[in-house]
Amino acid sequence: MFFASDNSGPVHPRIMEALVRANTGYAMPYGEETLMEQVRARVRDVFEAPKAAVYLVATGTAANSLILATLGKPWQTTFCTPVAHIHQDECNAPEFFSGGAKLTLVGGSGNGCMQPDALQAAIASEENRGVHGPQRGPLSITQMTERGTIYPLDQIAALTEIARFHNLPVHMDGARFTNALVALGCTPAEMTWKAGIDAVSLGGTKNGLLGVEAVIFFNPEHAWEFELRRKRGAHLFSKHRYLAAQMSAYLQDDLWLELARSANRAAARMVHGLKSVPKVTFDHAPEANMLFPRFSRRLHQHLHEKGAIYHLWDGTLDGGEPAENLTGRLVCDWSVKDADIDRFIKAAKT
Amino acid sequence: MFFASDNSGPVHPRIMEALVRANTGYAMPYGEETLMEQVRARVRDVFEAPKAAVYLVATGTAANSLILATLGKPWQTTFCTPVAHIHQDECNAPEFFSGGAKLTLVGGSGNGCMQPDALQAAIASEENRGVHGPQRGPLSITQMTERGTIYPLDQIAALTEIARFHNLPVHMDGARFTNALVALGCTPAEMTWKAGIDAVSLGGTKNGLLGVEAVIFFNPEHAWEFELRRKRGAHLFSKHRYLAAQMSAYLQDDLWLELARSANRAAARMVHGLKSVPKVTFDHAPEANMLFPRFSRRLHQHLHEKGAIYHLWDGTLDGGEPAENLTGRLVCDWSVKDADIDRFIKAAKT
Amino acid sequence: MFFASDNSGPVHPRIMEALVRANTGYAMPYGEETLMEQVRARVRDVFEAPKAAVYLVATGTAANSLILATLGKPWQTTFCTPVAHIHQDECNAPEFFSGGAKLTLVGGSGNGCMQPDALQAAIASEENRGVHGPQRGPLSITQMTERGTIYPLDQIAALTEIARFHNLPVHMDGARFTNALVALGCTPAEMTWKAGIDAVSLGGTKNGLLGVEAVIFFNPEHAWEFELRRKRGAHLFSKHRYLAAQMSAYLQDDLWLELARSANRAAARMVHGLKSVPKVTFDHAPEANMLFPRFSRRLHQHLHEKGAIYHLWDGTLDGGEPAENLTGRLVCDWSVKDADIDRFIKAAKT
Amino acid sequence: MFFASDNSGPVHPRIMEALVRANTGYAMPYGEETLMEQVRARVRDVFEAPKAAVYLVATGTAANSLILATLGKPWQTTFCTPVAHIHQDECNAPEFFSGGAKLTLVGGSGNGCMQPDALQAAIASEENRGVHGPQRGPLSITQMTERGTIYPLDQIAALTEIARFHNLPVHMDGARFTNALVALGCTPAEMTWKAGIDAVSLGGTKNGLLGVEAVIFFNPEHAWEFELRRKRGAHLFSKHRYLAAQMSAYLQDDLWLELARSANRAAARMVHGLKSVPKVTFDHAPEANMLFPRFSRRLHQHLHEKGAIYHLWDGTLDGGEPAENLTGRLVCDWSVKDADIDRFIKAAKT
Repeated sequence: MFFASDNSGPVHPRIMEALVRANTGYAMPYGEETLMEQVRARVRDVFEAPKAAVYLVATGTAANSLILATLGKPWQTTFCTPVAHIHQDECNAPEFFSGGAKLTLVGGSGNGCMQPDALQAAIASEENRGVHGPQRGPLSITQMTERGTIYPLDQIAALTEIARFHNLPVHMDGARFTNALVALGCTPAEMTWKAGIDAVSLGGTKNGLLGVEAVIFFNPEHAWEFELRRKRGAHLFSKHRYLAAQMSAYLQDDLWLELARSANRAAARMVHGLKSVPKVTFDHAPEANMLFPRFSRRLHQHLHEKGAIYHLWDGTLDGGEPAENLTGRLVCDWSVKDADIDRFIKAAKT
Repeated sequence: MFFASDNSGPVHPRIMEALVRANTGYAMPYGEETLMEQVRARVRDVFEAPKAAVYLVATGTAANSLILATLGKPWQTTFCTPVAHIHQDECNAPEFFSGGAKLTLVGGSGNGCMQPDALQAAIASEENRGVHGPQRGPLSITQMTERGTIYPLDQIAALTEIARFHNLPVHMDGARFTNALVALGCTPAEMTWKAGIDAVSLGGTKNGLLGVEAVIFFNPEHAWEFELRRKRGAHLFSKHRYLAAQMSAYLQDDLWLELARSANRAAARMVHGLKSVPKVTFDHAPEANMLFPRFSRRLHQHLHEKGAIYHLWDGTLDGGEPAENLTGRLVCDWSVKDADIDRFIKAAKT
Repeated sequence: MFFASDNSGPVHPRIMEALVRANTGYAMPYGEETLMEQVRARVRDVFEAPKAAVYLVATGTAANSLILATLGKPWQTTFCTPVAHIHQDECNAPEFFSGGAKLTLVGGSGNGCMQPDALQAAIASEENRGVHGPQRGPLSITQMTERGTIYPLDQIAALTEIARFHNLPVHMDGARFTNALVALGCTPAEMTWKAGIDAVSLGGTKNGLLGVEAVIFFNPEHAWEFELRRKRGAHLFSKHRYLAAQMSAYLQDDLWLELARSANRAAARMVHGLKSVPKVTFDHAPEANMLFPRFSRRLHQHLHEKGAIYHLWDGTLDGGEPAENLTGRLVCDWSVKDADIDRFIKAAKT
Repeated sequence: MFFASDNSGPVHPRIMEALVRANTGYAMPYGEETLMEQVRARVRDVFEAPKAAVYLVATGTAANSLILATLGKPWQTTFCTPVAHIHQDECNAPEFFSGGAKLTLVGGSGNGCMQPDALQAAIASEENRGVHGPQRGPLSITQMTERGTIYPLDQIAALTEIARFHNLPVHMDGARFTNALVALGCTPAEMTWKAGIDAVSLGGTKNGLLGVEAVIFFNPEHAWEFELRRKRGAHLFSKHRYLAAQMSAYLQDDLWLELARSANRAAARMVHGLKSVPKVTFDHAPEANMLFPRFSRRLHQHLHEKGAIYHLWDGTLDGGEPAENLTGRLVCDWSVKDADIDRFIKAAKT
């Protein structure tokens, strides 16, 4: 009953097979291998973006930080939410890679989504201090968000329109891109460049890979600078074929969509089950593979004793009133078994 | 007949098997998995260093840059040779990770090894400018060197003694550590901390792994800073077990030594063969798995036509006098086949 | 009627005389001149801190950024208010000098002072993410604040006590240190190290100098690192005597106190006058030489037409309802003339 | 008898008078004062560059580092000589401001001037490593050089032509620009943009100012980025008028030329005198206000005992053979008195 994170699950067998398949003889290093050509073509095809620049790195933090450093300048500020991974969980990597750019936290509705009004206000407040204040820089939004919610396409468009008006580039942190994509049922193009996104961190690691994220710039003018930043950041792999092999298999035969659907389905089963447990509420409506149910500390303790593993989002297991309500964060990855979910719900009910 | 680099060869089957073995169910992320405990214990055992801090990253540039940033300060200068990988082949990554530290190039004897006299002189010349000049920082040496040569233990000791006298920490770039180790026939401890080394980049990628380098600090006081730098540099893997699995299998049953011996043996066979080819000379005596033979452009052209792949170290295949002598760089990895070498030599003789 | 800022006024005649006096023959460069010895001794004496390390730089941003870079680490976050100069008005200089450290904005009561509860909460919220979040770093408070308010000594102590509990160093941005000091009527020691401050930017530029700020570390262990950072930041002056001459004259015969008293007195006269103007309110009680009066746009327009120069803090002179109330920011420096204030008040009343 | 450096002399009286003149009432801050408009117009006029962007900073290191950071990229390398101030005497400031760009040392003839052949070779050697090596960046030359020599105009043109061919921008470190200018007898335009220079650090501090250097970009497209970098580097002065006042007076009535001529003349007198002292030689022909005479340690000791102050360039006053020849570095600034020179020569002869 492991629901702690989708970054701790196994790799899908078809990915492992792809690695084994790639392991024959010599291959050109540093992304010049044939496999990477296939990946590039496939990503362009999938995103309906024939000129896109496509790169692979091994961590989401690398994808995010390198993209933001490429899109922005050290004297600018990036607009993101207070719960953005780039703000909370990257130990200042965006500040490091950008050479000291700032992050401006744009308050939202509490569900992890940035509100257009709040973005407008945040941009306006950086407006009239000449060289003194930080200059306005990129907008970065996370789809799906760190709170398990999903931006509707029109909200993405509303945000990017504001950015475009101020001539600011837009990044999408897509660590769980595919979970959002299949939940919305739209195309990759619709969720990105057709909605005004300039660059995407397309996650793979949380969705069945060992550790690969694709970086996509819809405007290839950023390509060479990104390549230099990737190398300088020590994120260019010599045996790059083993990254390409993963991403190639991931996008083959819609495996990526299939895995995200499995994860979302598992989470829906969990939500369904939890709704039948008395006194369980949700901080906000779960939309994909991450949920924030709220119930008593006593029940959290009970579930952990039964072997469930997940994080408490506020408070701690021990100390405090047993009856106090605390929020947990449960994440399902592609490999979660129905039996584990059912066991979890059963335990919650007793 | 692929001798272009040991960074382009395949992964050893036992490594792939280890990956498959590691791919079951959930595992704690970020290096907290059980496998990493085994790796840490094994490295400490192999290096006779029970308190060493041990980390894994995916690229050699990451290992080098993060170690140097941890050992030094932005206002210092790192002493290295003009052919050091950190100077020539990392696109300013050491400068980036250190926040702008300098590299001081210490001239040597032309064989890629730093000479103690030259180090002494270089350190002395940074001596008396107060805050104006860069401050003296870490010493970084490469074993085996980028020219295929190997420091004898007493030369390492002579260099580190000079550094120690000036209170400077010492880093060993061990991208091809194991090739040197088996060539010298000494222990890992003898080649490192017993000879005055403070931190090692222990290469795996060039010797049969997909992409893993171990970082070893013999003094664990650097541990926490390194962990923060690794995270901030986006080099901490969530599914870290797949790095640990590789390193674990690598050190198991002396696989790492076996692979390096294979590579060195292949290179020795190549050297032996080339010595029987008329008019072939060597820029310096080959000592492990990399050689720099010198012969006519005509012969280089001929070998490339026959399917040999390797880099010319100076000059180009086309243009110039056919009879002009040019140096090639040939590298053998663990997977090079005797038949390919013999074919190469045969082609060279005709 | 110039009330736009205390950074635009003239230099006090005794400072100019000191410059002329210092301009004889040769002097040792880079802070090794005799005058700097006097400054150091005088600062130590004034602050009752015989071991303090004392430096001079030419801008407040340099003082703040260099101190914070010395006290913190790139992977940390500095705690400050949302209106802190280091956050709003230094174009990411603290991020630049620190190598990418973050600023965490600690909300307050709206008067520019940080509240201990808010600090406690902000520190706590950076608590349990291991290497993932930024690490807790220095606390930086501004005395007097950017809103013209002054921390009582016990509030400083309450804040530094929290920092101390978490082992965090504390910086005081004292761009208007002296205005606060004379308003509180305490000693420099009481307002700094006796209240738990580790390092101070002691402003001079806004209080009658051409451009000099003193940097004071009460713990001299930071001295050498600061000197290197200052040089590397291009803030070490060769003809340093002309900085020392200013600071020496500033601290001589209590000139610094006298100038701050003049400025505060002028502001008090302005406040007194404005209180007699109907419908004028203050955003918060003015405490030293900066005030934020609120009145109609019509009146702001009228005053500007009469020649008053100051910034509107919200809104603009033109556009909008004439009767709409807007806040202005008025700053008095040492040189403001009573006649100008009286003229201003007279204009406001008509 | 002070010949240690031109950074330790007094300020010219007309500069002090200009400061006093500027010290009346309020002035717009941050370079928006009227005086700066005059400076800008004057610099453009003097350099025959009506579109040049002109800025003031207070230190030569700031001017150099900020210009190089603006002209280059963090993944590039700047080409300079091994004796360049930016390499030897700025404690890694160029690396800091650029975000980690490298300096490639271009060997020369030993007189401090870069040779075109050596530049060509250095650029070529950075040629074919794709993303792996640093990318080629700006060329930086010092006029007059740190060895007291002066580039003839055609040598500047030969160097910039090579840079231009490779599309590299060119910076001139003109800490002693005017000493070279009056020695060559050419126009500022001829020594800069007409010879292919893109940006100049125009020194004032070593030639009679308190501490001001002008930054000139002949191509104004760099202007806004430079302004942001200057602010972010904490080098934008609020009471900027006191910088502008100095530079304004400096360029008025050819004061800058007059001061440089005085300094050069003093040095020529010193050279003339030393040539009459037996066994005195010069490391290279002195060309402006800096000389490197070579004579016995005994004579150096004698001169220091008589009160002469200057640096020994190699060796030390004490220890070693009295008869051993050592090089001294003597610098004359505008204020050196003939009587001091004559006293020095007289002492040397006895």
